[in-house]
Amino acid sequence: MIVLLTNDDGINADGIQALKAAFLGVPGAEVYVVAPDRERSASGHSITIHHPLQVEEVDAGEAGGRSFAINGTPADCVKLGVKALLPETPQVIVSGINRGPNLGTDVFYSGTVSAAVEGIILGIPSIAVSLTAFENLDYSFAARFAVYLTGEILARGLPENTLLNVNVPPLGEEEIAGVTVTRLGKRPYENIFERRFDPRGKLYFWLAGENLTLDDGPDTDVGAIKDNLVSVTPVHLDLTNHEVVSLLSQWGLTTRPGTGPTKGAP
Amino acid sequence: MIVLLTNDDGINADGIQALKAAFLGVPGAEVYVVAPDRERSASGHSITIHHPLQVEEVDAGEAGGRSFAINGTPADCVKLGVKALLPETPQVIVSGINRGPNLGTDVFYSGTVSAAVEGIILGIPSIAVSLTAFENLDYSFAARFAVYLTGEILARGLPENTLLNVNVPPLGEEEIAGVTVTRLGKRPYENIFERRFDPRGKLYFWLAGENLTLDDGPDTDVGAIKDNLVSVTPVHLDLTNHEVVSLLSQWGLTTRPGTGPTKGAP
Repeated sequence: MIVLLTNDDGINADGIQALKAAFLGVPGAEVYVVAPDRERSASGHSITIHHPLQVEEVDAGEAGGRSFAINGTPADCVKLGVKALLPETPQVIVSGINRGPNLGTDVFYSGTVSAAVEGIILGIPSIAVSLTAFENLDYSFAARFAVYLTGEILARGLPENTLLNVNVPPLGEEEIAGVTVTRLGKRPYENIFERRFDPRGKLYFWLAGENLTLDDGPDTDVGAIKDNLVSVTPVHLDLTNHEVVSLLSQWGLTTRPGTGPTKGAP
Repeated sequence: MIVLLTNDDGINADGIQALKAAFLGVPGAEVYVVAPDRERSASGHSITIHHPLQVEEVDAGEAGGRSFAINGTPADCVKLGVKALLPETPQVIVSGINRGPNLGTDVFYSGTVSAAVEGIILGIPSIAVSLTAFENLDYSFAARFAVYLTGEILARGLPENTLLNVNVPPLGEEEIAGVTVTRLGKRPYENIFERRFDPRGKLYFWLAGENLTLDDGPDTDVGAIKDNLVSVTPVHLDLTNHEVVSLLSQWGLTTRPGTGPTKGAP
C-alpha cells in the first residue's frame, strides 16, 4: 500500500508526524509525506498558479518513508505529490491530523479538508482527520483511528466523489464514547473585525470572533463531538442543487426580455 | 437596493468595472465595490486570519458608488464588506465578471465563486458571473445579464443555501443562442507539472496543463457554453452526502475493534 499524507498545519506539525508514525507501523505500507513548508490553515481550496512550487526533501528520520516540504497549499501538495513526486498513484490520501476542529461550516475554509477534496478530484480515496482542540493535544488515538478507517476504506471501497471528514474528541481512547456517522452541522464564523491602527496611524482590520453553533443536532458532527463521539461525515463533491435546476427552469430566463435586458431590475 | 460587487481578478479588472457601470445604471441602486487589490484567482475559499486586512478607498470616479481595495481574498472582501464597510447589509452580492470560465470542476478553485459562497454563508443572495474567454473580451452583455438576473432574484427569491453560477459566452447579444439552467459538468485540470531549473540549478515545478472535458452533456454548463448559451447553475452549500450516511452506518465503525485499533488495516 502506498499512502500519501498531507496537512495544512505544515510538515513539522505534531499531527502529521503522529499520522506518519502510525502508518509506518502498518506492515507493507509505503508512506509519503508531501506537506506545506509552513502553516497554511484557512487556505481553503486555493492552488498556486502564479508562482513556481519548490520542493525540499526533508530527512524522514530513522522510521522510514519519504517527506517533501512544498511552498504551496494543501491542494498543491496533493496535486504535486500524485502527479510529480510519488513513484505511483497512492491507494489512499490522509490529510491531517489537524490541530483544531473541522466541523460543519469549517469545511469550506479548511485546508485539511481541501487536500482530501483534491484527492477525490484525482480519483483517489481520501480522508481528512482533525482533533477538536487546540491545546494539550495527544494525537495518538486519532492516528490509530485514521489507520483503522483507512483499512476499512480499502477493504470496502468508498462511493464515488465522496471523502470522509473525521473529527476526534481530544480524549484518551477509554474516554471516547464511540464512533458515529454524521451530517455536517452549522457553525459559521461570527465575523467580528477588530479595528486597529498601525504604528503610522493607519486603520486596519483583523478577523476575530468565534464559531456560532447554529445546528448541533445529535445527527451532526458538531453534536457528536459534544457527546465525546468520533464523527465520520461523508462529504460529496456534487455542488449542483439538482432540485433547484427544475425550479429555475420555470423562471423563463432570456437574453432578450420584453423590455430590454434590465427588465425586472431593482 | 444596496449591491456589493467583488471579484478575484482585482479591483482594476475590466470585468468588475463593467459590472459597476451596469449596476450604477439601475435607478435607486447603491453600488459598493469591495475587491482584492490585485489578482487573486485560484484562491478558492481561503480567508486571511494570519495577517491584518488593509482597506484603501479608491476614487470611484464620476459615476458614483464607493470602491474599496483590500489586501485579501475574495471571501475576505465579502466578509469585511458586509461586516465592517457597508452601512447596512446588501440585498445582493455579485461576484465577477470573471475573465475566463468557471465551469464544472473550476468551481472548487474559483475565487469568483467562493465570494458568492461566502455571501450565501452570510445569508445574502449571491451570484457569480464569468465570461468564458481570455482575450478580446467585451463584458457589456454579461454585465446587463447580471443586472437582469439580479432583478429576477430579488423579485422571486432564491432557495436557501444556493447561489447561482453564471457563465456567459464571449459573443455579442445577437449571437447568443439563449439562456439555460444547467448542472455542473466535469472538466478537471490535467495537472501537468513542468519541471524547470532556477538560475542556481535548483529544481522547481510549475503547474501547467489544460482542462480535460469529461462531462459536457447538453444539461451541463460546459455543454451550454459549447452551444453558445448562457448557463445558470444552482450551486448548493450542503456538502453532506446524505445517501452515504446510512451506507456508512452499516460499516459498524468502532473505537475498539476486536483485534485492536489497526484491525483491517492494509
